[in-house]
Amino acid sequence: MAGNQWRTVLVTGANRGIGLELVKQFIGKPNPPQMVFATCRDPEGARAQELKTLASKHPNLAILQLETTDSASVEAAAKKAEAHLGSCGLNLLINNAGIMPACSLESATAEDMLDVYNTNLVGPMLITKAFLPLLKKAARASQQKGMSCGKAAVVNMSTVLGSIEKTPENYCFMPVVSYRCSKAALNMLTKCQSMGYKEEGILCTALHPGWVKTELGSDQADLTVDESVNGIMNVLCNLSEKHHGSLVTWEGNVLPW
Amino acid sequence: MAGNQWRTVLVTGANRGIGLELVKQFIGKPNPPQMVFATCRDPEGARAQELKTLASKHPNLAILQLETTDSASVEAAAKKAEAHLGSCGLNLLINNAGIMPACSLESATAEDMLDVYNTNLVGPMLITKAFLPLLKKAARASQQKGMSCGKAAVVNMSTVLGSIEKTPENYCFMPVVSYRCSKAALNMLTKCQSMGYKEEGILCTALHPGWVKTELGSDQADLTVDESVNGIMNVLCNLSEKHHGSLVTWEGNVLPW
Repeated sequence: MAGNQWRTVLVTGANRGIGLELVKQFIGKPNPPQMVFATCRDPEGARAQELKTLASKHPNLAILQLETTDSASVEAAAKKAEAHLGSCGLNLLINNAGIMPACSLESATAEDMLDVYNTNLVGPMLITKAFLPLLKKAARASQQKGMSCGKAAVVNMSTVLGSIEKTPENYCFMPVVSYRCSKAALNMLTKCQSMGYKEEGILCTALHPGWVKTELGSDQADLTVDESVNGIMNVLCNLSEKHHGSLVTWEGNVLPW
Repeated sequence: MAGNQWRTVLVTGANRGIGLELVKQFIGKPNPPQMVFATCRDPEGARAQELKTLASKHPNLAILQLETTDSASVEAAAKKAEAHLGSCGLNLLINNAGIMPACSLESATAEDMLDVYNTNLVGPMLITKAFLPLLKKAARASQQKGMSCGKAAVVNMSTVLGSIEKTPENYCFMPVVSYRCSKAALNMLTKCQSMGYKEEGILCTALHPGWVKTELGSDQADLTVDESVNGIMNVLCNLSEKHHGSLVTWEGNVLPW
């Protein structure tokens, strides 16, 4: 998939779980990107130590402070990325940061619903807006025909739990109502982005990473982080127009809304 | 559809548009409900005048103050409804109140997204929670088999613009991103409610009223309020288990998510 080789990549929520593993796998490729941006809320905190250690060994990995719910922080991160990139654009933006607190119909409060929506929906929206000039620059500079993550792409980390159609299959053991509602909305945002950014040649796809053994997914999950991210890396290499505005699994299958 | 005859109904956002017309048609039936509750933010304001005039002529119509984004107001309205109802439950709750401000991918702000989500998603969630004891009471008291609006039902006013699948058909002339995302989330909430309230026998359905000539829908819309609400009244009479957890149009057709 040489045609799909991204030069510049950004991953949010990159200090743990799937985000951290994505950064490791990008950096560890035989032909790694020229620049990988890993964002997290608190790069100086104890929870970013593994990411910092990784960055100290890889000059093509830059850590950016980014709090997804703070538009000033998002815009500052975009400015810093632009300064790093010089004349390059950003090929691949992965909106991975997200939260999944316990929440049932009985326990849900207005505050819960709004907090989760803010992080899982508003954050990706603000980040995509802020990085759009860099994505457009990458799309214009690319010689590639069609859409791909090597040209310019927004990948929103969604979930099968955001599929309304699939809800009867998994609601009983994972109600997480605030999370489900925010991810159904994120699927809609992805579809809107796919309509709005189509002419610019920017691929927009929602991704279901599987149920993964992370802090968010718990240790009862089906997949190790490694298995999930291996699958995701393979999917990213193969994303094209046919996945534009779709919800795709870590194995490359399209899910119903 | 005598089996579907509701005795008690509540409509939110009932001082204008589809909400007001629903109240008029319930009250105007040959065999009207024993009690119709019409809620609005400001029953004393100029914009509630038509509703007040209607209530002055119909003793079975009660106006309740209810601000959908204020949980204290929602709970106070539920208490007042309970006092009115005495030993009766509430058969049919119609979460109709909603907003649709202009909002494109370019213009959307965090504040816009959160405000619209608060009114269109959090409001219906809080209201349904607050009125759930009355809905359960109605379900328990009913002799009817199966699910229906005459037994106990939550109808969430949604829209085809909340259908992710249908977005490519209507995005260009109506982007309204904040509205679309909130309504996709409301569709998910409806599905969660259909799972959570199934054992109680409470029917949960999302409804697309058509594109209606109201303040929200503009005068370029396809349908008059009267045409839409005639269709909706007919659909409400015929809702059953097969519509539980679905998005149904004013003509009774099921839409994809």
